[in-house]
Amino acid sequence: MTEATYAAKYGRWGADRPIGVAVLGMGNVGSEVVRILREHADDLRARVGAPVVLRGVAVRDTTNRGIPGELLTTDADALVARDDVDIVVEVIGGIDPPRRLILAALNAGKSVITANKALLADYTGELAAAAERSRADLYFEAAVAGAIPVVRPLIQSLAGDRVNRVVGIVNGTTNYILSAMDETGADYADALADATRLGYAEADPTADVQGFDAAAKAAILASLAFHTRVTAADVYREGITRITAEDLETATALDCTVKLLAICERVGSGPGEPDPAEGGKERVSVRVYPALIPRKHPLATVSGAFNAVVVEADNAGRLMFYGQGAGGAPTASAVLGDLVMAARNKFYGGRAPGESVYAELPIAPIGDTPTRYHVNLQVADKPGVLQAVAGEFAEHGVSISTVRQEEHGGRARLVVVTHHAMESALADTVSALAEMASVTSVTSVLRLEGTEE
Amino acid sequence: MTEATYAAKYGRWGADRPIGVAVLGMGNVGSEVVRILREHADDLRARVGAPVVLRGVAVRDTTNRGIPGELLTTDADALVARDDVDIVVEVIGGIDPPRRLILAALNAGKSVITANKALLADYTGELAAAAERSRADLYFEAAVAGAIPVVRPLIQSLAGDRVNRVVGIVNGTTNYILSAMDETGADYADALADATRLGYAEADPTADVQGFDAAAKAAILASLAFHTRVTAADVYREGITRITAEDLETATALDCTVKLLAICERVGSGPGEPDPAEGGKERVSVRVYPALIPRKHPLATVSGAFNAVVVEADNAGRLMFYGQGAGGAPTASAVLGDLVMAARNKFYGGRAPGESVYAELPIAPIGDTPTRYHVNLQVADKPGVLQAVAGEFAEHGVSISTVRQEEHGGRARLVVVTHHAMESALADTVSALAEMASVTSVTSVLRLEGTEE
Repeated sequence: MTEATYAAKYGRWGADRPIGVAVLGMGNVGSEVVRILREHADDLRARVGAPVVLRGVAVRDTTNRGIPGELLTTDADALVARDDVDIVVEVIGGIDPPRRLILAALNAGKSVITANKALLADYTGELAAAAERSRADLYFEAAVAGAIPVVRPLIQSLAGDRVNRVVGIVNGTTNYILSAMDETGADYADALADATRLGYAEADPTADVQGFDAAAKAAILASLAFHTRVTAADVYREGITRITAEDLETATALDCTVKLLAICERVGSGPGEPDPAEGGKERVSVRVYPALIPRKHPLATVSGAFNAVVVEADNAGRLMFYGQGAGGAPTASAVLGDLVMAARNKFYGGRAPGESVYAELPIAPIGDTPTRYHVNLQVADKPGVLQAVAGEFAEHGVSISTVRQEEHGGRARLVVVTHHAMESALADTVSALAEMASVTSVTSVLRLEGTEE
Repeated sequence: MTEATYAAKYGRWGADRPIGVAVLGMGNVGSEVVRILREHADDLRARVGAPVVLRGVAVRDTTNRGIPGELLTTDADALVARDDVDIVVEVIGGIDPPRRLILAALNAGKSVITANKALLADYTGELAAAAERSRADLYFEAAVAGAIPVVRPLIQSLAGDRVNRVVGIVNGTTNYILSAMDETGADYADALADATRLGYAEADPTADVQGFDAAAKAAILASLAFHTRVTAADVYREGITRITAEDLETATALDCTVKLLAICERVGSGPGEPDPAEGGKERVSVRVYPALIPRKHPLATVSGAFNAVVVEADNAGRLMFYGQGAGGAPTASAVLGDLVMAARNKFYGGRAPGESVYAELPIAPIGDTPTRYHVNLQVADKPGVLQAVAGEFAEHGVSISTVRQEEHGGRARLVVVTHHAMESALADTVSALAEMASVTSVTSVLRLEGTEE
């Protein structure tokens, strides 16, 4: 329904013309959204300038929800289509039915607030186009880092700046597991089992531990930071399932810890292209993997289920945002902030900023991305091995920062930390090392982030 | 000029209808705003949807500014009044002429972006009313904590939450001085002299070291957090000029440091009033003073000229925002973010959220505010002194958390840390202690913040 139709039917929004809200889904987040809408109706009315009324909640099963039965429906499509619904909050998760429901709402000119990172990571273009056509609002602060305002700062506060880098811990489950491994020395399987028992990991933890959740958020952050459409498929992704207790020991020895990082950054132009300063097209790299970071780095102190995002921009410098990245109430806080803004737009006119992808920067393949490696090798304990290993790095054009040699009862270990080099050169070096006769095994390979070189 | 008049004269805003900007003031911040407007015109155009054009810069002296002379004027009033100026950026500072110029702009329906905390702390009501009358935008992200997005998160992201507490380090000069005292053991005078020499303190540092700057920012933060108009006069304020090297030593002994904190929090209802849970009117306390905080508190690690703000809300939980709180480029980043939003509003319709002061919570006097004290006493080294001192605390209804007694060559020292008590009871206790025969002197009194009790 357009504003004109609405006005003809109900009069203008105002003190006696409520703004109707439909909530789709009543899990952890939906329940909290519904609770706040009902308990804080007076505050919301004062902040919007008009009453905000819950019209209905779409659920799969209408029993025992603790709210009046007439608010519940299993027919989400009909709820979205109701004439007295102006704003739709989607907190179901997954691609369908949310995609269909959100498009229906946007096509009808209704504002949509969603926390659905998986959907946004792949379909923001389609959703934003629908919002643009009907001049509707699409807000999604809750999709990244829960209660932490990071979407709005990137879209609005930094709208006049040039963001160079976004690095975040954006998945609470993996951060809980890695923090536990760091603190207790537990191995991955035990830490995961504990996290599952305590409710920090889902029964099927794949989306979290394999980095899919973080990759979806990285795609959203990169899109906003670089004004370029980035989808989940553009994100290079490694999970934390191969991180061992020994990796954490290694980290501690280096005064580092291991974190699953979402990294979005501008990198140079492609091979053979002129430098960006000389007219070449800059590219962006978006990747998610576990990496060593120095304990004194601000992200190293983010432990347990907390999230944090560091943003580096030309003029603002380095900013950090920290808080609860998941959970019903924190995520609902982000949803409600968006809801008040969407309701104010209905009341006063105005629109949320639409998608901004004008820069259209190409995505650099992971091989072209500069990273640093930390490599642990078991080697034969005889003269000349260090020289041979160093030669292999040099042959691939990888410069070594430090080497430490350790001996334990006839077995020798080499710990090599490189300078920044192209990821493909580093990977090739590691493959070559594994085939050397004097190298017994490559015991671990970890990237190192958060250092100045 | 109204939008209709503008449209009649120039056509609608759009690709070939630029949005005109006037910058008032060309100091550190103004110079950076002008530089970014000129260097990044293409990005700004893409992000706004229409060209953004610098119409002129008001300065006191038009010589040697490094920009075309025709952009410079000493007549700020005439620049603001120009028909082709749609947005006015005020970065002059001080109350007048900014107040007059901003009101003129708002009354003419022009959007205003200001970094002027002193003006906002006292005149937001007047400015917001003018903006409301002409349906113009008033943005001021840059007024608090420089580049760190904290104004927009409080107004927008937390619009659906209930903020209980905002605690921040919002003055870089004093944080630089206190960090230096903490790290080097320097006394206040020496640390201030260093800060002045290095450009971290102004020639007249009064506004910073006496806490006036932080108090203005606290007033702004409290207004936004509690939907209540708070002015600088409502803020209890103590500066850092009486902090000694010995205070920092004491802090270190307690595993604390000393920070100048801006604290905005909900406190209970007034004396004799029913509890807020039983219908009594909640009050807010807004105060700025140096205080001990534990070194493991997130704000303790904020050193040098950096700023950080911690926000605690019912649903979001604890959030922290960290970054550069001052300086030309960081502050300009915040101004430009607001500028892009104001320009988008011109282009697409819509308005910045106006002032929200519906809650009208009363301000609690400092005496009614619960705080904790850390008190150092020189006492006579004879039996019964500890008992007498403890009795004085008890008589004022102040509960003691820890007492430490130290002896140095016939002189004894008592170090007392209290539980939370009303500030007036704590102050009365200290006055009474100073008059006790067995107390040689009260060597230091510091509040303790950031503890759970």
